[in-house]
Amino acid sequence: MTAALTPSTTKAVDLGPAVELVSKEEGHRQPLAPEFVSAEDFSPLEVGYDFGRVRREDIESGPRNIWRYKKLLPVPSNVEEIPNTEPGCTRLVRADNLAKALGVKRLWVKDDTGNPTHSFKDRVVAVALAAAREFGFDTLACPSTGNLANAVAAAAARAGWQSVVLVPSSLERAKILTTAVYDGALLAVDGNYDDVNRLATELAAEHESWAFVNVNVRPYYSEGSKTLGFEVAEQLGWRLPEQIVVPIASGSQLTKVDKGFKELAQLGLVEDSPYTIFGAQASGCSPVSTAFRNGHDVVQPVKPDTIARSLAIGNPADGPYVLDTVNRTGGAVEDVTDDEVVEGIRLLARTEGIFTETAGGVTVATAKKLIEAGKIDPDAETVLLITGDGLKTLDAVEDKIGPKATVAPSAAAVNEVLGG
Amino acid sequence: MTAALTPSTTKAVDLGPAVELVSKEEGHRQPLAPEFVSAEDFSPLEVGYDFGRVRREDIESGPRNIWRYKKLLPVPSNVEEIPNTEPGCTRLVRADNLAKALGVKRLWVKDDTGNPTHSFKDRVVAVALAAAREFGFDTLACPSTGNLANAVAAAAARAGWQSVVLVPSSLERAKILTTAVYDGALLAVDGNYDDVNRLATELAAEHESWAFVNVNVRPYYSEGSKTLGFEVAEQLGWRLPEQIVVPIASGSQLTKVDKGFKELAQLGLVEDSPYTIFGAQASGCSPVSTAFRNGHDVVQPVKPDTIARSLAIGNPADGPYVLDTVNRTGGAVEDVTDDEVVEGIRLLARTEGIFTETAGGVTVATAKKLIEAGKIDPDAETVLLITGDGLKTLDAVEDKIGPKATVAPSAAAVNEVLGG
Repeated sequence: MTAALTPSTTKAVDLGPAVELVSKEEGHRQPLAPEFVSAEDFSPLEVGYDFGRVRREDIESGPRNIWRYKKLLPVPSNVEEIPNTEPGCTRLVRADNLAKALGVKRLWVKDDTGNPTHSFKDRVVAVALAAAREFGFDTLACPSTGNLANAVAAAAARAGWQSVVLVPSSLERAKILTTAVYDGALLAVDGNYDDVNRLATELAAEHESWAFVNVNVRPYYSEGSKTLGFEVAEQLGWRLPEQIVVPIASGSQLTKVDKGFKELAQLGLVEDSPYTIFGAQASGCSPVSTAFRNGHDVVQPVKPDTIARSLAIGNPADGPYVLDTVNRTGGAVEDVTDDEVVEGIRLLARTEGIFTETAGGVTVATAKKLIEAGKIDPDAETVLLITGDGLKTLDAVEDKIGPKATVAPSAAAVNEVLGG
Repeated sequence: MTAALTPSTTKAVDLGPAVELVSKEEGHRQPLAPEFVSAEDFSPLEVGYDFGRVRREDIESGPRNIWRYKKLLPVPSNVEEIPNTEPGCTRLVRADNLAKALGVKRLWVKDDTGNPTHSFKDRVVAVALAAAREFGFDTLACPSTGNLANAVAAAAARAGWQSVVLVPSSLERAKILTTAVYDGALLAVDGNYDDVNRLATELAAEHESWAFVNVNVRPYYSEGSKTLGFEVAEQLGWRLPEQIVVPIASGSQLTKVDKGFKELAQLGLVEDSPYTIFGAQASGCSPVSTAFRNGHDVVQPVKPDTIARSLAIGNPADGPYVLDTVNRTGGAVEDVTDDEVVEGIRLLARTEGIFTETAGGVTVATAKKLIEAGKIDPDAETVLLITGDGLKTLDAVEDKIGPKATVAPSAAAVNEVLGG
């Protein structure tokens, strides 16, 4: 299993309000430790808290990054003083142009491309590293094919940690460069992503000082996604949005945004107003959307085939919980074709000047489809989560866009082309 | 000349505290208008202000973007309410790892890669657009080979404006894509960058509704760089740094950071403490560094040949003013080779987890050189301006970095490579 430390060591950890781990299925409780599956019911472990009293002022007077929410996260109480990449507090953009194009009244885009390595992964990795430090790890690791690799390598560099990042050897050169530049142990593995994943689990069991962010410290890591929900609520003036569209890879992010909203309401930080959560997938990897459409509560694994590689998890661990959340809030899960994904990228860029990666194209295109189907209420306020940057998936748009024209270097030539 | 409007129109413009244009050489004053060269002494025009009283609270209670400084910029008093890309308020990172590597005590990195299109150009373009709107323009335009093209196309899309972006037809495909995605009029011009620049000046004179950000509305555009200085001072707790290193392209940014510092001191927003400004160039385009070294007060144009393309301006318009500023503050201008630039990129990534473009590599490498030469005081606090993102100049590092190893998908293979 994972590198669990002895009880005496785990007792000493300062993870702020976090007090225990709780199994997701049957609620078995156990001490905080670097473990991710319950030995009782084999379901995922989640962090349990004793929040005490948290006031808006505690948050508003905090730093301009995710650590302003430290009283709601499994991190040490002095977390902001330890060198870290300082992710979060990205823009929430009022998207009136896109709203008009989609035929809705009030629309917001949460633009997480502003993070240090330009995806929401900086949030979850920062929380994972902060917790891992408390558990005595000294190396940050992950299997990845993209955003996570960038985030782990950068966060480790900044923290003065070693990093071990495993990627398939077939990975595109650009994604290798954007990880290798941080100078950790980037290893190209001769195999596909499944091979790399299996290797990560094997290595996590062997190396007691390696924290695999999405394996042995996953309960802490995944809590980082709550900060997307916290920020949206705070940026809306301390209230919950009526509708939100979230992309689905493992499904963790969607369930954690929901958890974040619920915690804010429980703590009285926002009014406990109803909200609806929608999930977005690419048709080439749509196991959760398929299950939703068929009314199933389990998810059948699929073999991914889509340009939205950062969402291409064929067997999403949190798929059933996504279905629970979406059904509970009256939402839906929908999927869109790769052509629609590219159209989504272009629509957001053209209307709001935000260039997102394929995952963001999935979110925009799915929102469009749900609006056209009458599932998203056009009169209710909607937030779209844009979680990664178009600079990282240029290949997706490569064949579709280019200059309007090539002209001779004269005003006459330009005027002719532009009809001026 | 430029598209100057009639006096009756220009009188009505609301550009906040901006009240006039002043010629840089002899101080001739004229009304606010979209003009950039004085007809009296042919020197550049700068914005003149009547700031009135500005308090820290006015700024601190403003939005988390450059508009918190609107009382110090030539923009309408309601500027934050008009859709814009909301640049600024990027991270100021305490860089202890890099400080140790360079042998200095207190070092900060201003990481402007967090802007909407990941360079400081979003700042200057946002100010240019806000001023241009007041003058009645409806199209945002520029000649560019990179960051500026991205920023103009994105800002225009968000504002609902047309954009006309002129690039050399030989431009790398990636840079064309990151501009074309915003769906403005991107035109590839058969010619080099000088041809494109000449064409821009020609078109600016012909099209009364086109605001070329760095031509006819340049006095407003360039003021946007002051916000880098404002933010550094505010983020340091309302004080000026002792030393700052700024990359030099046209030289405008360096002089405007200085102007920003001076304005803060004049207004009593910070203590009027001494500071030293250093300029950084690539050896392959180092006209200002060469002039500084030779004790000249004019700058001899050069033909650029460097991987730091965003700094490759062979005839920098503000070169003489850079020399004035650096000499006045007791600083220096230095230049570094392309190999040193790549080393600078890698050093910043390895120590602080920040991946910068070649211009940032120039800044880091120049700082290193100036420290080693004893010109930067290792005991005084230093700020490095990192103005653009490594994702945009991957070609610079392409041949230098990669995976540590390619391994079989087994723990044994990984352990052998890592000596674990």
